Amino acid sequence: MADVNQGAVPVAELWRGGVLEGVHLGHAVICDANGVVEAWGNPQAVIFPRSSCKMVQALPLLESGAAAARGLTQAHLALSCASHQGAALHVEMAGRWIKDLGLGEEDLRCGAHDPADRDERDRLICAHEVPCQLHNNCSGKHSGFLTVTQHLKAGPEYVELDHPLQRAILAATEEVAGESVAGAGIDGCSAPNFAVSLEGLARSMALFAVAREGYGARQDAMFQLTRAMAAYPELVAGEGRACTELMRAMGGKVAIKTGAEAVFVAIIPEKGLGIALKIVDGGTRASEAAIAHLLVRAGVLEAGHPATLKRLNPVQKNWRGIETGQLRIAAGFA
Amino acid sequence: MADVNQGAVPVAELWRGGVLEGVHLGHAVICDANGVVEAWGNPQAVIFPRSSCKMVQALPLLESGAAAARGLTQAHLALSCASHQGAALHVEMAGRWIKDLGLGEEDLRCGAHDPADRDERDRLICAHEVPCQLHNNCSGKHSGFLTVTQHLKAGPEYVELDHPLQRAILAATEEVAGESVAGAGIDGCSAPNFAVSLEGLARSMALFAVAREGYGARQDAMFQLTRAMAAYPELVAGEGRACTELMRAMGGKVAIKTGAEAVFVAIIPEKGLGIALKIVDGGTRASEAAIAHLLVRAGVLEAGHPATLKRLNPVQKNWRGIETGQLRIAAGFA
Repeated sequence: MADVNQGAVPVAELWRGGVLEGVHLGHAVICDANGVVEAWGNPQAVIFPRSSCKMVQALPLLESGAAAARGLTQAHLALSCASHQGAALHVEMAGRWIKDLGLGEEDLRCGAHDPADRDERDRLICAHEVPCQLHNNCSGKHSGFLTVTQHLKAGPEYVELDHPLQRAILAATEEVAGESVAGAGIDGCSAPNFAVSLEGLARSMALFAVAREGYGARQDAMFQLTRAMAAYPELVAGEGRACTELMRAMGGKVAIKTGAEAVFVAIIPEKGLGIALKIVDGGTRASEAAIAHLLVRAGVLEAGHPATLKRLNPVQKNWRGIETGQLRIAAGFA
Repeated sequence: MADVNQGAVPVAELWRGGVLEGVHLGHAVICDANGVVEAWGNPQAVIFPRSSCKMVQALPLLESGAAAARGLTQAHLALSCASHQGAALHVEMAGRWIKDLGLGEEDLRCGAHDPADRDERDRLICAHEVPCQLHNNCSGKHSGFLTVTQHLKAGPEYVELDHPLQRAILAATEEVAGESVAGAGIDGCSAPNFAVSLEGLARSMALFAVAREGYGARQDAMFQLTRAMAAYPELVAGEGRACTELMRAMGGKVAIKTGAEAVFVAIIPEKGLGIALKIVDGGTRASEAAIAHLLVRAGVLEAGHPATLKRLNPVQKNWRGIETGQLRIAAGFA
């Protein structure tokens, strides 16, 4: 394995007035179930998947039998994999879920932050209300965590590294990545996040892509989570966001997920492929451009779709609508 | 000259759970009036200074005699060099300035955007008002531009490349940088922005640092603009911002200025030094850490000051106050 800076290659470039103004370096890996199909940069670069691995973190929810026991719907499963906007839709659904468990918002361990959704943000501001933990973009994941915790009759501190839930997530992470984790960090939502190689993350996504129903709990869970994400793009992120708009553009056939510090993954069942990429500097504009590029290249996203054009080589306009620059995929990554 | 990616070195690193999660590459140059004193990365890297060169763009305001003719105060000069928050303070001052010229907000050419200042943003939201051009972070610079334009009896389209004002700014840019510009781009506020080498930008700042009154219009202008910025840190940026807090921490002895896409400059009169730095990926957290580091290193900023600690090697905490990571100055940049 290698540190994240080793062997990184230019992924996206910012141009202004014919001058190169900025560059984003990164790594990307495409895997099938047998291993690496194609790679840019260093597949052995160690990264924190951050929120891009929420479908892996949701595996115990299904594999433990908790989801079935609680009668969770496909929408619940999508929300459990979400980094949502804290829109009314998300807040209300997470709130109902917690209430159905007989629990309250105070049982969450994700913390509160301002919602990214503008309507809900404005509503809170003008009502002089403060955001609650349900507004946290990870509140769906944490609702899933509480569901497993209750099902396992485990203690309330479900984000501790030695909690049965987190031990199950660690085991699932290593099994699907096909490697031992390279470290454990704490995520923005207080949950552990396990460092893996980019190849390990891409391999994990490939296993989700080839999973079929009726071949055991692991494949059943992977199959269901992939379909849930692709079926409810508005729950996985929210209006205006890359995950939501690009999944809609692909018509429910592909599941994709972003993570903090510019990670992006894709699960492409029809091709049996998984993609994982990381921009070394954490620049989200570059990770969004890169995933759009790789999805177009894989033949599952239309190059001319408005959702694609918004991320891939977007022309930057200023406050008066004048073109000022352009973010372009770097030549070596094309 | 070289493109911005050539020879860049690690400037700041993001660490989480003992694992390197991200890296920001960049360049930095320290000049005195005779040239480069110290450099990291490539001093010949071509960059767009963006808003970091507002004091250069303000030179014609003084050199033309417009500032004196209109009786502009030191506060006006500070606002002309500002990338402000669009707080009530900034909006009202720019509005009065325009009105005193006998002009209106519609004569500005910067465009409108939401203010970064939270109080003013919330006021607009709850009053169902939209931001105007006075809220644009560059409205002070554009007020200065209008002042020069009126003084020169030039046409109203003062952001056009062949407008007398922009030709004067181009000439001043090349004279203080000691080189021909490497290109022209359009900035977020619609004004031209001229590409120079990082060394050229650092040299420009060194000339501001050593300028003395009574040695001609250029030195008078440089001397006054530097003192105005350092004397009114709240006008140059706003509450909570790096420029404002770090200038306050240095007690009015140093002028510093950020620019979009992670440029930062400093003018240190007591040392006769100018600093310019650029993070290649545009990551502002790294440019703020880097300028704080270089100011501490130069002996003009206290390492233990709260404003310093907020930018230099800050511990990242999540929504529950738990430490998750740390941004650190890279070993080779220390």
